[in-house]
Amino acid sequence: MKIAVDAMGGDNAPGAIVEGALLAAKEFPEMTIQLYGKSEEIAPYLKNERPSNIEIIHCDQVIQFEDEPVKAVRRKKQSSMMVAARAVKDGQADALVSAGNTGAILAAGTIIVGRIRGISRPALLGTLPNLTDPSHQFVLVDMGANADSKAKQFQQNALMGSRYAQEVLGIAQPRVGLLNNGTEDSKGNHLTKEAYALLKETEGIHFIGNVESRDLLGGVCDVVVSDGFTGNAVLKAIEGTATHLLQLLKTTIKSGDLKTKLGGLLIKGTLKEALQSFNPDTAGGATLFGVKAPVIKCHGNASAQTVLATLRQTYKIVNSGMYQALAEELKSMASVKEEERENE
Amino acid sequence: MKIAVDAMGGDNAPGAIVEGALLAAKEFPEMTIQLYGKSEEIAPYLKNERPSNIEIIHCDQVIQFEDEPVKAVRRKKQSSMMVAARAVKDGQADALVSAGNTGAILAAGTIIVGRIRGISRPALLGTLPNLTDPSHQFVLVDMGANADSKAKQFQQNALMGSRYAQEVLGIAQPRVGLLNNGTEDSKGNHLTKEAYALLKETEGIHFIGNVESRDLLGGVCDVVVSDGFTGNAVLKAIEGTATHLLQLLKTTIKSGDLKTKLGGLLIKGTLKEALQSFNPDTAGGATLFGVKAPVIKCHGNASAQTVLATLRQTYKIVNSGMYQALAEELKSMASVKEEERENE
Repeated sequence: MKIAVDAMGGDNAPGAIVEGALLAAKEFPEMTIQLYGKSEEIAPYLKNERPSNIEIIHCDQVIQFEDEPVKAVRRKKQSSMMVAARAVKDGQADALVSAGNTGAILAAGTIIVGRIRGISRPALLGTLPNLTDPSHQFVLVDMGANADSKAKQFQQNALMGSRYAQEVLGIAQPRVGLLNNGTEDSKGNHLTKEAYALLKETEGIHFIGNVESRDLLGGVCDVVVSDGFTGNAVLKAIEGTATHLLQLLKTTIKSGDLKTKLGGLLIKGTLKEALQSFNPDTAGGATLFGVKAPVIKCHGNASAQTVLATLRQTYKIVNSGMYQALAEELKSMASVKEEERENE
Repeated sequence: MKIAVDAMGGDNAPGAIVEGALLAAKEFPEMTIQLYGKSEEIAPYLKNERPSNIEIIHCDQVIQFEDEPVKAVRRKKQSSMMVAARAVKDGQADALVSAGNTGAILAAGTIIVGRIRGISRPALLGTLPNLTDPSHQFVLVDMGANADSKAKQFQQNALMGSRYAQEVLGIAQPRVGLLNNGTEDSKGNHLTKEAYALLKETEGIHFIGNVESRDLLGGVCDVVVSDGFTGNAVLKAIEGTATHLLQLLKTTIKSGDLKTKLGGLLIKGTLKEALQSFNPDTAGGATLFGVKAPVIKCHGNASAQTVLATLRQTYKIVNSGMYQALAEELKSMASVKEEERENE
């Protein structure tokens, strides 16, 4: 197994990326990690260690956070991200991992690695914690690759999410919920009503009906399917609320009286442990589905531990052969529709 | 000033509703509160107190949580909610307050109280706390009255939200942000891109551009405008995350070791105070805008304190004359468009 890693993407690149890759290389001797980027900047972080399953592929250009995604794909052909994406397309690597410019990663995945047959627009899949049962996570798809989704994309998202939950999270029969504005069957806007009807008749998934965003962290289902715009808004609302609430907690304790400060000290360790599930170091990255090979986006401020977690996740995804199997399933979903159209 | 209160709506009705009304009647001697509902069930909660500014209007029927909204309007004409709504329509009361079935309240507002000219669908407006500055709140509109919003409704929402922030929250020049999937000007789906262009040229509001849901609780703006579907999803994601996170905190402390339990005891009081801003008892209700008179929806599990807070808010809204002024502004917004169409 060979993984193409964009060593220059992210706030802490290349240091954190290289250090995370080193940790993963030790953990998975059978996985070769290709580090794409400026060799003179990468080399120092490898120090004296130079495991045989780490390769450096020198690239002159770097895609910046502020680069316009599609332009970046077209104009920065020698950038670490694009050279890595081409390696995946050409079969020299099995998956692409980057902590760089999100739009550019989506564009590289869609344009260079390429969409699979039957998929008009890929979707971004991520996991979030179940706060009532810290050993469980749930999948959210689409997290924002597609701002204007169509109803049939919900069906594809449900299939992708179900396979991910099975292969990576180990849930035998994942419960799929449609993110909606109420739990009753009749709820929704035009788009989700149409999606509901499609999901009800989709084979190969376990659809349990509508779910509301307030119940997601309580583990109401294992796979939440959504259009990319709403999925993105809900993801960011969850992240933002958690961040601001924990910040408020910290400030309150810090600015409190002696009693409060002492209380804060006493609960600190236990609380930190309980909140581990919100830690990107353990959660891994967001996965682009609907493309020919796994493209995985790490958090922009990824630490070495985040990179390690993402490479563990990438190992599972590649090892499962999920992308190949999904391509077949999605193809047959599309051809069933073509047949239906022909018979009409 | 006369306020029509549906005494039978909500989980704790009529007890909490009547008790809240009693508190408000004492605080605002110049406000008459009309309690609509079963007089034999209302009377006991008034005990020996019978302030002259409380009236009981007997109604036989009650709208239940599970009643289908539009059917409820048509078939339960003698219900407390519908009789109260007709009182507002007929000018016998200045505003409607209910903690009952949300859909039925929206339908009663739209169908009975009636839309104002230029408004195709009313919008639901609510306030949420600014967690970095507990003395401030922000407005979110539409919170879900309208599942399929059009771009021009964002413009109306911005105007309604701005006037509310000025009159009720006392913010002189409220900053209006468009809820979107990124902060850059070019971001969005088809709908929000169209809304962005309209908001930029809307007079009488202070539009600051796109905002993301992760920044709302940090006070990024004073008025967040959104389509009803996304607004609803974000509102519920914020509520759900806060609920689940605080529950996790509680469980962690309760199931912790002696040190953790002691720490929990020490911070409890201060923490409770800091989280007051999330308390519906202080936040008031959600307001339906775009109708001829104020229609205010209290939380379903409203306590007497929630009802009191909502009646305080209702007092401010009615007293400001905001609905009459807004009707004029929205009318002229609509007629400017008619003129433009005629000139084309």
